[in-house]
Amino acid sequence: MSDVTVIGLGEMGSALARAFLRSGLRTTVWNRSAAKAADLVAAGAGLAPDAASAAAASPVTVVCVSDYAAAAAILDDAVLAALAGRTLVQLSTGTPREARTLAAGMEARGVRYLDGAILAWPRQIGGEEAVIVASGPQAVFEDAEPLLRRLAGGVIHQGVDPGAAAALFAAVLAYLAGHWIGFAHGALVARSEGLDLAGFGETLAGLAPSLGADSRHMAAVIAGGRFAEPESALATAGADIARLVQQAQDAGIGDAWPRFAADLFRRAAAAGYGAEEHVAIVKVMG
Amino acid sequence: MSDVTVIGLGEMGSALARAFLRSGLRTTVWNRSAAKAADLVAAGAGLAPDAASAAAASPVTVVCVSDYAAAAAILDDAVLAALAGRTLVQLSTGTPREARTLAAGMEARGVRYLDGAILAWPRQIGGEEAVIVASGPQAVFEDAEPLLRRLAGGVIHQGVDPGAAAALFAAVLAYLAGHWIGFAHGALVARSEGLDLAGFGETLAGLAPSLGADSRHMAAVIAGGRFAEPESALATAGADIARLVQQAQDAGIGDAWPRFAADLFRRAAAAGYGAEEHVAIVKVMG
Repeated sequence: MSDVTVIGLGEMGSALARAFLRSGLRTTVWNRSAAKAADLVAAGAGLAPDAASAAAASPVTVVCVSDYAAAAAILDDAVLAALAGRTLVQLSTGTPREARTLAAGMEARGVRYLDGAILAWPRQIGGEEAVIVASGPQAVFEDAEPLLRRLAGGVIHQGVDPGAAAALFAAVLAYLAGHWIGFAHGALVARSEGLDLAGFGETLAGLAPSLGADSRHMAAVIAGGRFAEPESALATAGADIARLVQQAQDAGIGDAWPRFAADLFRRAAAAGYGAEEHVAIVKVMG
Repeated sequence: MSDVTVIGLGEMGSALARAFLRSGLRTTVWNRSAAKAADLVAAGAGLAPDAASAAAASPVTVVCVSDYAAAAAILDDAVLAALAGRTLVQLSTGTPREARTLAAGMEARGVRYLDGAILAWPRQIGGEEAVIVASGPQAVFEDAEPLLRRLAGGVIHQGVDPGAAAALFAAVLAYLAGHWIGFAHGALVARSEGLDLAGFGETLAGLAPSLGADSRHMAAVIAGGRFAEPESALATAGADIARLVQQAQDAGIGDAWPRFAADLFRRAAAAGYGAEEHVAIVKVMG
């Protein structure tokens, strides 16, 4: 018998198993391709011969595979029989609907189910920066929480709706996509104008606390419908963004990102929101 | 005679003039519509009868109007005659090319010219959070720097290329567009899934330091061409983003943002960059 089982040993699953082992837990692992388990076995993990044996080895099983379809393929009758009355923490990425569907299926089979999302890169697992958000029954969360704290400095119960963790992950990812794409175009602008890229990165790192505060501000503006007294008017931001299209054309770089962004701000201004807070773009995105 | 002149009294120009006054400087102001000067005059500013008189009143004139076309319209022969041998700090927003063109024109007329960009909301002017980036000759920057420090906690000389400040502003704005649009869609996701918007804002505020570090990391990856050992693979991020399209459709919210982002990641993966660092999307954006 072991303390915890990890099923799925990709980059993230391996990081989870390593963090459990480092924290002194007896850890059982299983992966469809056993080769990926070699390093973990060398570090002290027990390798189960099949997923059902892996699930039977510990009171709590953590699954972290590529998506819910892959998880469902592993959770066959034999595995579900082994999991009955035990706890399954599902950390694969998926939509809120997939999470709710799987939760209903697990409940029907008597599995104590917690759905989670990892807000961290694999190398951050086990450290203070990592955050795991989980959703599902309070009692199941409380049972699993001490284990999750071995993985992440921040462990948050997002509520009893099993889709809530995936929902928060999706909302954060929508933001991250903007962080990545906006950064990439900004880097093209910087390079095309002869700026030092490191300086651009430092500038954004310096602005990060302000942007965190701006996220809090935008949430309050949207939640309270307080668009009318802008800190920065949508039309002004839109005019600035439209200039990015001109810069891209002047400098001969791609203009897909500024055109997308400028079009969105233009549509919001045309819909009558030009004098409102910039985040009123949400009114034409819904 | 006064210490500094401010031409243009919109939200930002007024904030600049207020900060100069608060710091004890004798300040002359001028605006095409004089009504906007009333509050500043009440606070001690001198109101010039025309732009040329305003420029003649101080050794340094700061211009902050809606764009370079508006600035050029103000900088007529009479104003340029008054500015000859004096310093003009241009803080209106424009493209790097517009900044370089105006700088060349000012040099031809014997005006000491500094082009700047403000990285702050009007309410932050005069405070530690505000950053002003300026570009132009070192000697002109050194003359203007003590004045600019009355306006912003951070004053950076971005180099002698007069387009450099506008270039950094454009690069940062490309990022901000992603911050705003990504946040707005994330808020739609959160609301459509029954999450608390304030909690979403707090989550992003908590992640802000990590995202600042990620900006530094992405700059180093792009500058060094070090895409091959990803912290997070482009294909994984792309698969996660593609799920946002599904979430939007499941929840009945707009999917323009996740479709744009997913398409970009898909194109980058199709071009062979799936196993590289996520910011390798830049390779199909240039």
